[in-house]
Amino acid sequence: MLGSTHGTLTTDLRARVVACGEASRAAVHDTATPTAVAAGDLDVSGRPLYAEVPDLDRFFRPESVAVVGASDAEGRPNTGITRQLIAWAERVGARLHPVHPTRASVFGLPCVPSVRDVPEHVDLAVLLVGDPLPVVGELGEAKVRFAVAFASGFAETGEAGAAAQTRLAAAVERSGVRLLGPNTNLNAFERFRDDLEGPAIALITQSGHQGRPLHALQELGIRLSHWAPTGNEADLETADFIAYFAQRPEVGAIACYVEGLKDGRSFLLAADRAARAGVPVVAVKVGRTEAGARTAASHTGKLTGADEVVDAAMRQFGVIRVDALDQLQDTAALLARARKPVADGVVVYSISGGTGAHFADLATAAGLRLPELPAAKQAELHEWIPEYLNVANPVDNGGHPVGDWRGRKIIDAILADPAVGVLVCPITGPFPPMSDKLAEDLVAAAEATDKLVCVVWGSPVGTEAAYRQTLLGSSRVATFRTFGNCVSAVRAYLDHHRFTASYRSPFDEAPRTPSPSFRKAQALMRPGEQLSEHAAKQLLRAYGIRVPREQLVTSAAAAVRAAGLVGYPVVMKASGPRLAHKSELGLVKIGLTSASQIRDAYRELTDIARYEGIGLDGVLVCQMVERGVEMMVGVTQDALFGPTVTVGLGGVLVEVLRDASVRVPPFGEDQARAMLGELRGHALLEGVRGAPPADVDALVEVVLRVQRMALELGDDLSELDINPLMVLPRGQGAVALDALAVCR
Amino acid sequence: MLGSTHGTLTTDLRARVVACGEASRAAVHDTATPTAVAAGDLDVSGRPLYAEVPDLDRFFRPESVAVVGASDAEGRPNTGITRQLIAWAERVGARLHPVHPTRASVFGLPCVPSVRDVPEHVDLAVLLVGDPLPVVGELGEAKVRFAVAFASGFAETGEAGAAAQTRLAAAVERSGVRLLGPNTNLNAFERFRDDLEGPAIALITQSGHQGRPLHALQELGIRLSHWAPTGNEADLETADFIAYFAQRPEVGAIACYVEGLKDGRSFLLAADRAARAGVPVVAVKVGRTEAGARTAASHTGKLTGADEVVDAAMRQFGVIRVDALDQLQDTAALLARARKPVADGVVVYSISGGTGAHFADLATAAGLRLPELPAAKQAELHEWIPEYLNVANPVDNGGHPVGDWRGRKIIDAILADPAVGVLVCPITGPFPPMSDKLAEDLVAAAEATDKLVCVVWGSPVGTEAAYRQTLLGSSRVATFRTFGNCVSAVRAYLDHHRFTASYRSPFDEAPRTPSPSFRKAQALMRPGEQLSEHAAKQLLRAYGIRVPREQLVTSAAAAVRAAGLVGYPVVMKASGPRLAHKSELGLVKIGLTSASQIRDAYRELTDIARYEGIGLDGVLVCQMVERGVEMMVGVTQDALFGPTVTVGLGGVLVEVLRDASVRVPPFGEDQARAMLGELRGHALLEGVRGAPPADVDALVEVVLRVQRMALELGDDLSELDINPLMVLPRGQGAVALDALAVCR
Repeated sequence: MLGSTHGTLTTDLRARVVACGEASRAAVHDTATPTAVAAGDLDVSGRPLYAEVPDLDRFFRPESVAVVGASDAEGRPNTGITRQLIAWAERVGARLHPVHPTRASVFGLPCVPSVRDVPEHVDLAVLLVGDPLPVVGELGEAKVRFAVAFASGFAETGEAGAAAQTRLAAAVERSGVRLLGPNTNLNAFERFRDDLEGPAIALITQSGHQGRPLHALQELGIRLSHWAPTGNEADLETADFIAYFAQRPEVGAIACYVEGLKDGRSFLLAADRAARAGVPVVAVKVGRTEAGARTAASHTGKLTGADEVVDAAMRQFGVIRVDALDQLQDTAALLARARKPVADGVVVYSISGGTGAHFADLATAAGLRLPELPAAKQAELHEWIPEYLNVANPVDNGGHPVGDWRGRKIIDAILADPAVGVLVCPITGPFPPMSDKLAEDLVAAAEATDKLVCVVWGSPVGTEAAYRQTLLGSSRVATFRTFGNCVSAVRAYLDHHRFTASYRSPFDEAPRTPSPSFRKAQALMRPGEQLSEHAAKQLLRAYGIRVPREQLVTSAAAAVRAAGLVGYPVVMKASGPRLAHKSELGLVKIGLTSASQIRDAYRELTDIARYEGIGLDGVLVCQMVERGVEMMVGVTQDALFGPTVTVGLGGVLVEVLRDASVRVPPFGEDQARAMLGELRGHALLEGVRGAPPADVDALVEVVLRVQRMALELGDDLSELDINPLMVLPRGQGAVALDALAVCR
Repeated sequence: MLGSTHGTLTTDLRARVVACGEASRAAVHDTATPTAVAAGDLDVSGRPLYAEVPDLDRFFRPESVAVVGASDAEGRPNTGITRQLIAWAERVGARLHPVHPTRASVFGLPCVPSVRDVPEHVDLAVLLVGDPLPVVGELGEAKVRFAVAFASGFAETGEAGAAAQTRLAAAVERSGVRLLGPNTNLNAFERFRDDLEGPAIALITQSGHQGRPLHALQELGIRLSHWAPTGNEADLETADFIAYFAQRPEVGAIACYVEGLKDGRSFLLAADRAARAGVPVVAVKVGRTEAGARTAASHTGKLTGADEVVDAAMRQFGVIRVDALDQLQDTAALLARARKPVADGVVVYSISGGTGAHFADLATAAGLRLPELPAAKQAELHEWIPEYLNVANPVDNGGHPVGDWRGRKIIDAILADPAVGVLVCPITGPFPPMSDKLAEDLVAAAEATDKLVCVVWGSPVGTEAAYRQTLLGSSRVATFRTFGNCVSAVRAYLDHHRFTASYRSPFDEAPRTPSPSFRKAQALMRPGEQLSEHAAKQLLRAYGIRVPREQLVTSAAAAVRAAGLVGYPVVMKASGPRLAHKSELGLVKIGLTSASQIRDAYRELTDIARYEGIGLDGVLVCQMVERGVEMMVGVTQDALFGPTVTVGLGGVLVEVLRDASVRVPPFGEDQARAMLGELRGHALLEGVRGAPPADVDALVEVVLRVQRMALELGDDLSELDINPLMVLPRGQGAVALDALAVCR
């Protein structure tokens, strides 16, 4: 299949079957054999493993529409909206029924006092009333399938509004109606051009104004199929639309503008469906900063979640995150329309050596691969391009050859190279004698190939015919206005296809039943408390994570005996609940080599604790573990996504460098390994300055066991911090030298 | 002065006087009192301290022009060029003289066989001949002031071409003519619109095609005054044009497209002139990657230099580096035209809460300050904006108020707040009933204020009247097409004015005469050799950098005696020239506390050295220094900028994290401190986990002493690497525990 029609049921099923077959390779150590998930399945934490996909066909293409609060009175806002809805209904062939308690007709259409009185079954009710709550019951009685509520003044306005929204959501759930809004608008019923070809962009926005430039893409020849302005998401949410659009054959890419997510898990399940179907999801997600998150919350009343967690979650499920709307447009348009790449090599072709060098520089910096063209290919290009010009890649034609018959030949010759998947031609400034013909040749070549042809029309003017008519006139050429957007869209295109080609859904392999460790762990939990170091390490042991040989003692004599059992040299530490930052307080003694040192240390530790007023459950006498790489592995609760797992450089550096990588469970071994690759300091694990390589497999195993812990203990484990986790040389494992655990 | 006419001689003089007056605060420790620099001054490394500014008035506005190789023969490339030059000469009122060995006239103009035969003094000779070299002598004889050479085939083509360029450059220097090119084009004689108002952009490009979109800015109403297409820079270079443009009153900003610099120092001196004059320089510099650098070199035959050094050098002198041409356009246009900021607060104003939240998020992430508007101001805004909308900043008007008389009042009220220096209104999609009026109000308000008003016209279409006529029709509104470019341009605008307000030229304070340390250091240098650790430390001592108490010994007995003098515990290390990576080889022993340990260590170290075939000059017995932060300070030679100074995290981490900051000398104490702030791990110096804060003053002092060393020893010191430099707790200094020095 060379076309880009994604999202068929066949693809989805195939992905699931592949995932099943390979599930036995999973590293999650489930006792049960993992199987593909189905509706209603829950993982061990009680979260769903399956996205319920609402059937929104009748929402977007209703046959009968009731407009509650319809008006034709002069000067009323609802009058304008009613007029637009009537026009829209006519265009799409829907029957429209005005609903108003007192009017007999609206714009000549017969009006009924209640939805219950509409003479046919209603697919969609548009609620123009100030308070939709009282209407919801009637909608349920009339078995209306969908409703849209425009009214604002809900969660976006503060506490009272949030309470009103909760009441509305509850009423909607009781009624069986599916609701879009409140605080939304007419965008779902905009006009979509039906004369445009190729796969379309489906658009989801939490703000109508922010979707407008994407809607305007149609004026540049890019097809849009849907627009879901989700507003406050009292019921239907972004995730529902992603899951639905991922199944629609006309949708080539889903573009989202998200201010806050309603629920982390449903977003991931929807993204998972899109990933299985191979449909790209491109998203702007506000909340890079505290300020942005706060403002977004005041706009649609949603949590934005910790941004690095949002970022990680999106990457795990292949959602392409971009910062701004122009990037959303350019990336979604490219991903919707470009066919599957046949190779990942990018060739830059230009009429100026400077342009080629500049583009190549930015492309390489962004991680694109620019292969050198083979000698034979270069010789072929030199049939048409003067010998002194560089044609290795970038290909510089010096200008003149584009003006005649050679122009098309050069492009075709480049595209014929098997290593080339993408040809990019940056035209920074229009020079009509050359650029007009070049644009025509590029369009003709693009129409004749399955490979991706991109053009950057760099003129800031943008009214040139070569741009407006020639380039935008073809759905086979991806036309950009800036180097930056072209480079990042091509990167996203290649990444997306690489990602989906090897995607295995972690939901298929997620544990559904508790492991034997769980019962042991439960017995150790102390609700509302921070566990002592000793207890936290027992928790780790319950999950098979290695801790040093150690004993908890309550006398100097016992300490000396313990040291004999543990083996010299030893480390001694004060142990007690609610005890953190032991080193700063002087509550750790290392490298003790004799009984007398141990007795001294015991006295000193207990003295400091008494002096500082710290309650101890004893003193730990621990095996000393020195040679290794100090890492940290931890669990944190995210407001949006629940427990998350972090791995990073440990020891003192964790605070200074914050060099850590995070993931949202469930994730597999591949992701655990990828986390290590994301660390700036990952070379430490490979062995530096003569140090042996660290036992990365053991570190990965700890990450996966910690994930299992996070899933099974769920919210009950507010926080876990293994630091340092000493990762020993390869083959020797990893040992948790210290641990902090906080129970909810 | 509120206007943005920069670069007058007055400003320049004032900057110089200020710099003189404050020079005594300099931390460069020169023995001579620093004074302002003048033409011909050299620093201690023999490099110039002063940019000679060529008087290019007659180059850009010649009164008499000779065209060597002029033609009116059908089908010859020179014919088209001659025709363009004649038209251009007529337009600018220059007298044009065709020069050709055989023709009597060209296009009806009398033609002479040689430049010497032109009947008047020639300001500018345009050389259309294939090889300009033979003509250069004649130009000199005729005392022609400027020449432009179009011919290609020089340094951009490889070794033979580079040699030809060297010959051409030598001939040009002998002749006294100033040459632009070779490998350049007609861009300097393009048509510039003279109907545009406001300060202009002056453009310098090493590639004609890459300058074209900036030239096209005139179609958007942005004024251009000059275009210098520098080509291969056999004589005149980018730096010459920067220095010249910085003095021109009509120039508001200088925009550069640079592939490679001819000389690092002349670029810095030019940037220094621009910084003194307060004229912003915005530059694209190719070479982010090896691939880009290589391709750029093959285009104009220039070195690109290590990219992080280019980056640092530009920041030191206030040059604003951007990645792509669209950013170059938008940033240069804003900086050229916007008046000096009266405050650094940015207010975001929009007709949609979503748009405001999104823009605020990106702006805050980019480091812009979005102050909350005071309660009284918010109350004022609520006179026109519904109460439930957020007007704290971002200001969300909900849409409707822009349609009537309230629209302008809101904008004026925001601009009246004293904390507000910049108002940004993102209009993501056109909605004519609102956006047309909004654009008009924004233009009217901008025309009436000195504050900066920015608009982002987010529609991808760009043919809307509100954009084309209303917004682009005003030189007082800065109009962008993307959030990203607006945010980064506003950031650059505020940064530029902050930078120039406090700029003190480091050239005024650079040392010109060697310090007393220099003679001692010279005696220690061993040309072509890597010094032993002991010798390298003596070099450091010569410059007043502290090293541990240590003795070089050649017997076990002497080692024991040395330990007694140095004080237990000690460190022992093998010492020898060409000896690096001692730890990996087992050639370092730490924490030795007894004579017997010292004897054992001596034997082991010498055994290993023998076994590994390493020649030693002895064994170092050193004081052990433990409590401190391990940093590194070093010197590296850059192909473009000469010696550079680096500071970073030391020890093993230097290789793993590459967390380092670099500067090009000369720089002052402020920059040395700024280097530390740039380190990701800078918090280590503040003291973490109970560690005391490190002696940052001592570290800064070491950086400045190393700079002095780099300046005085110049190229002779190929490399210096102090690692670790142990920075002790505050007040206790810093000690170089190990050092590697390589002499040229």
